[in-house]
Amino acid sequence: MTAARPLNLHPDRLFPSDPTQRAIARRLYAEVAGLPIVSPHGHTDPAWWAVDAPFANATELLLVPDHYVFRMLYSQGIDLDALGIPRADGSRAQVDPREAWRLFARHYHLFRGTPSALWLDHVFHEVFGLRERLCADSADRYYDAITDALQTAPFRPRALFERFNIEVIATTESPLDPLAHHQAIRDSGWRGRVVTAYRPDPVIDPEHEQFAQSLERFGEITGENVYDWDGYLRAHRQRRAFFASMGATSTDHGHPTCATADLPPDQARALFTRVVTGKADAADAELFRAQMLTEMAAMSLDDGLVMQIHPGCFRNHNRALFERYGRDRGADIPLRTDYVHGLKPLLDRFGNEPRFRLVLFTLDESTYSRELAPLAGHWPCLYLGPAWWFHDSPEGMWRFREQTLGTAGFYNTVGFNDDTRAFLSIPARHDVARRIDCAVLAKLVAEHRLEEDEAAEVARDLAYRLPKEAYRL
Amino acid sequence: MTAARPLNLHPDRLFPSDPTQRAIARRLYAEVAGLPIVSPHGHTDPAWWAVDAPFANATELLLVPDHYVFRMLYSQGIDLDALGIPRADGSRAQVDPREAWRLFARHYHLFRGTPSALWLDHVFHEVFGLRERLCADSADRYYDAITDALQTAPFRPRALFERFNIEVIATTESPLDPLAHHQAIRDSGWRGRVVTAYRPDPVIDPEHEQFAQSLERFGEITGENVYDWDGYLRAHRQRRAFFASMGATSTDHGHPTCATADLPPDQARALFTRVVTGKADAADAELFRAQMLTEMAAMSLDDGLVMQIHPGCFRNHNRALFERYGRDRGADIPLRTDYVHGLKPLLDRFGNEPRFRLVLFTLDESTYSRELAPLAGHWPCLYLGPAWWFHDSPEGMWRFREQTLGTAGFYNTVGFNDDTRAFLSIPARHDVARRIDCAVLAKLVAEHRLEEDEAAEVARDLAYRLPKEAYRL
Amino acid sequence: MTAARPLNLHPDRLFPSDPTQRAIARRLYAEVAGLPIVSPHGHTDPAWWAVDAPFANATELLLVPDHYVFRMLYSQGIDLDALGIPRADGSRAQVDPREAWRLFARHYHLFRGTPSALWLDHVFHEVFGLRERLCADSADRYYDAITDALQTAPFRPRALFERFNIEVIATTESPLDPLAHHQAIRDSGWRGRVVTAYRPDPVIDPEHEQFAQSLERFGEITGENVYDWDGYLRAHRQRRAFFASMGATSTDHGHPTCATADLPPDQARALFTRVVTGKADAADAELFRAQMLTEMAAMSLDDGLVMQIHPGCFRNHNRALFERYGRDRGADIPLRTDYVHGLKPLLDRFGNEPRFRLVLFTLDESTYSRELAPLAGHWPCLYLGPAWWFHDSPEGMWRFREQTLGTAGFYNTVGFNDDTRAFLSIPARHDVARRIDCAVLAKLVAEHRLEEDEAAEVARDLAYRLPKEAYRL
Repeated sequence: MTAARPLNLHPDRLFPSDPTQRAIARRLYAEVAGLPIVSPHGHTDPAWWAVDAPFANATELLLVPDHYVFRMLYSQGIDLDALGIPRADGSRAQVDPREAWRLFARHYHLFRGTPSALWLDHVFHEVFGLRERLCADSADRYYDAITDALQTAPFRPRALFERFNIEVIATTESPLDPLAHHQAIRDSGWRGRVVTAYRPDPVIDPEHEQFAQSLERFGEITGENVYDWDGYLRAHRQRRAFFASMGATSTDHGHPTCATADLPPDQARALFTRVVTGKADAADAELFRAQMLTEMAAMSLDDGLVMQIHPGCFRNHNRALFERYGRDRGADIPLRTDYVHGLKPLLDRFGNEPRFRLVLFTLDESTYSRELAPLAGHWPCLYLGPAWWFHDSPEGMWRFREQTLGTAGFYNTVGFNDDTRAFLSIPARHDVARRIDCAVLAKLVAEHRLEEDEAAEVARDLAYRLPKEAYRL
Repeated sequence: MTAARPLNLHPDRLFPSDPTQRAIARRLYAEVAGLPIVSPHGHTDPAWWAVDAPFANATELLLVPDHYVFRMLYSQGIDLDALGIPRADGSRAQVDPREAWRLFARHYHLFRGTPSALWLDHVFHEVFGLRERLCADSADRYYDAITDALQTAPFRPRALFERFNIEVIATTESPLDPLAHHQAIRDSGWRGRVVTAYRPDPVIDPEHEQFAQSLERFGEITGENVYDWDGYLRAHRQRRAFFASMGATSTDHGHPTCATADLPPDQARALFTRVVTGKADAADAELFRAQMLTEMAAMSLDDGLVMQIHPGCFRNHNRALFERYGRDRGADIPLRTDYVHGLKPLLDRFGNEPRFRLVLFTLDESTYSRELAPLAGHWPCLYLGPAWWFHDSPEGMWRFREQTLGTAGFYNTVGFNDDTRAFLSIPARHDVARRIDCAVLAKLVAEHRLEEDEAAEVARDLAYRLPKEAYRL
Repeated sequence: MTAARPLNLHPDRLFPSDPTQRAIARRLYAEVAGLPIVSPHGHTDPAWWAVDAPFANATELLLVPDHYVFRMLYSQGIDLDALGIPRADGSRAQVDPREAWRLFARHYHLFRGTPSALWLDHVFHEVFGLRERLCADSADRYYDAITDALQTAPFRPRALFERFNIEVIATTESPLDPLAHHQAIRDSGWRGRVVTAYRPDPVIDPEHEQFAQSLERFGEITGENVYDWDGYLRAHRQRRAFFASMGATSTDHGHPTCATADLPPDQARALFTRVVTGKADAADAELFRAQMLTEMAAMSLDDGLVMQIHPGCFRNHNRALFERYGRDRGADIPLRTDYVHGLKPLLDRFGNEPRFRLVLFTLDESTYSRELAPLAGHWPCLYLGPAWWFHDSPEGMWRFREQTLGTAGFYNTVGFNDDTRAFLSIPARHDVARRIDCAVLAKLVAEHRLEEDEAAEVARDLAYRLPKEAYRL
């Protein structure tokens, strides 16, 4: 066990080392470093701000909810039980959270060069004031320092929200969610702005493991006959209206592909009947998801909710792990995605509508220059979401900009989404995104493709104006 | 409305900012900056040089014909009518071209970082001598300066051709084109070298919207019975010979895929019969295009025309826009392309023939390192065309070189094609290509992978020798 | 004919030219430059060290066995006969090896910027002490210097092995190979460590041109009834045990796709029967290869051999060339590969087994960030092999690191494989890999994403520790 070395958070981190570019990047970053955080898409838990209870300890806060972290540990042979990850049945192995933390600390070298290390070191340094690196030797000191801090007032969720300078954050809820936490936040008089987003996958995807129960509950909660096509669509309209009344400005759709369909009404109705009577095969399920994206777009024309599609993930690739631990356990793997054919039915129906707005994400970087930038550089409704999930590393963000800039420019993109469940990492993630955008712009300025005053305007737009405008926040 | 800021065109633009690399890039660029332009593939209008009439105004010259520009404006909600883009029926909205120009100017920030901005700023600065940036404030001054200049002798098409130091330019014509403009250029005694290229898509693609009429006209113009397989092939040979007599050294094929076929004669004949009797389904249409690529290759063996394939575009992705405005309106989207299986029938037939030469292009960058460089690095007939269309940005050109160099080297590539309809941008585009190639080479020299004398030779080859040799110009 | 210019091998080659990054790269490289070579995967000939005979001449040593080199020459119209490449029937054109060398030398400019030039120049400079560049003028001096040196003791295979500081090298043999050369090396008392690897493609792939004969021989050599499913599997187990006894620690599988299957025993048996009775169609052949990968994994659980899959190559793309010259003649072209669906059956069966280890390679770089890094960043059994074959250029190595780092980190990769038939290039290839890894790490340090002490540890791990551990060497 070696003594821990100093933890540094260099003010020039992520900027190019070329002195010309670095100097420009510094100046651009100075323009955006202090802007409020707009977080239009993510998976934080509204209960944090509704209840404002302290987080339990370092392990529960930073390790257990972060599948970026425990997937890497699992990939090197570390048992999820030993980290205290909950099982599908709700049980958990009897694990001392301090021991889980030590296990994590001993393997922290695995994260070298990864975005997780960037985010975690930022949290350690900036949020908790730690000044030694995490390693086996410092594990206990880390655990104690973090766990102790969490019991104090400045580390309660609302206090952190304010300290992080978050202007608005969107969570993501199922149509079945009563949004009680959002209501409680509103009722509390606290001024933090937390809005929801409409994520109807469980009542739209016939292959979702909880589709049948979700549909039943969807009927109960709306009072509609959701086994009838018209009633089912009315139920969506009703819940979307309720979500909008609770601040939602967007919907989100996490389908395995980005296929859309625009069936004649009688075919759509017949398809729906097969789906709700359990007669749908895999092709029907895919077609139903596809049709529902177009139905959602139709509703967006009416209620103005900005539509988001996050497609192309093979969920739960590890069958044994899924059976034991359930969803979202780091076993999701990207798939090739075809946006050109997939989106055409929806786009031919609504793509030229001035009020309609659709933000696209991808896990397939080969589509950046081939499909997404050309689509967004033509269709008025389309905007590109930022580098997503497996691609939110500094390198991934560079690729996103370098591969979309030529055809889509900066102004068909929507700035940054953190898309995270890890609340404390939000400032770190936005900081990384701002630094990389400034670095990209600095290179353009240094190579005389953009004047610095233009770059500064773009930097501010990407950090603040575009996400607010794109998401109508 | 803010006052316009200065427009700079920095002599080191597009060179790396690292001082070592920049110094090398400068020296390499000095070797190629003054070389004549060889433009072996593009879509300029030969009427310009046949008639030598002045261009009408800034909008007609720079905005209306440039789908790179108006697609970006359309993507941000600007109506094509407001820009004066012609409709499919030949009509145009009543638009004051000055108003269209102002609309463009107000949105010029959308192009920040895009190749269009690079090209346009080059044209503004170098061709028209403008020294303030285009913006809402300067829009009228721009419009007047450009429009006034166009009425003067130095801005007539032939004068610009000479000023641009164009040694030879190839246009692209359908087999149905009588090449009257090319004849007029020859007859005029003007010494500019303008050649044609044989682009038979309208008489080869059964799914082209004008296939039936084109085929009928193909028969009239050749005197062959083009509804008979042998007559149809003879008609091609006849027109190719005529095109060659008018200076053509190449053919070009813009198919949705790069599929080729090598059918036995009786099957080819039967397929042709289905095509010309309107009995071909989509698979037949695809197979016919595939077979015709191999037939074109067979003819190239005889007449020596260099073959080009520009595959992989979903044309007219926006149905409503296509119905209203027709083709080439910025709604074309790249597709995944499979060269390995697609080209095999043609290559197995002719790929080892010493006289045969086939230049490949792609809109699917994932094929650079996986398919195109390995194919070009083996087959004697194959050469790689430069980064094309959606990929002709500086970043796209870097990716092309970095992803093809290892396997194909520099000498299985053909230098630059501008592929443009925008005449005034030609020097800008060649300049960008030369600068990027010099930057790529400078990096290799600075990292001690190439000696500077070798790099200088490669730079000259890419800028001048290779395109001339590859296209037999 | 111009006089040859000096040949330099700059000590900073392949390092970034930015002074900050270069200085760090130098320091990191100093830590790894002298480490022994661990070469866990390649195609060198064990006869070299068994017999220790001198290599014949420059052409036989450096040109004839290297398909990287002669494919480039062939792509520019040079006949393989003129280079003395053996034909499929074993005959060779009557070619003076000196003339072949001159032909190569005259075209050496074709390799500018390619990895072949890097490796060859390293060999010329470091192994043979040449100080002028290869060109037409120096061709004969090169030929003589190299050929003369080869007749001397220090250039015999064992002496070079020792001079190259190779700690262990793995060759690759078919199950039919008696491993006589490996036995001879052991019996000789020479201390160089040369091990084999089990590469059963000829007895697993029903579409291999020698499958039938190979299967027959497989029966003879094992004494098993290999036309019976159980006997066939026993034969594999027997040969694997024999290979392991001769030092093998790994198996290798070069399939056209990475499809795996996990059939119920009766279906596997029925499939095998179709295969050995010649009733298998293409789909059966694919399914059989897929099933056999899972069978091989099952055996690895027992015998501990590390499994490698090298998929995704269209072999012998040039039919005429294949008929005349046979396999491995530079006409292999990469294919798109789908790891997500392809590997799932095998992974669902064995992917969570602690003892199982599977190293993945790809020729489809689009899978780095989309599939391979996410898979390796989750599944405990999976490791990523280095940038392979068409992608082992410096640019390809950079892409590998930049596209896998974010999700897989450094520690789910296995360091470098040279995968070569070109013995003399081994130090050059490992040197390139070490330099690029140091350059990648230097960039991370210069951009303050990693401390230099951490980078130094990673550099040593990648150069030495990880390949030894991953391959259990």
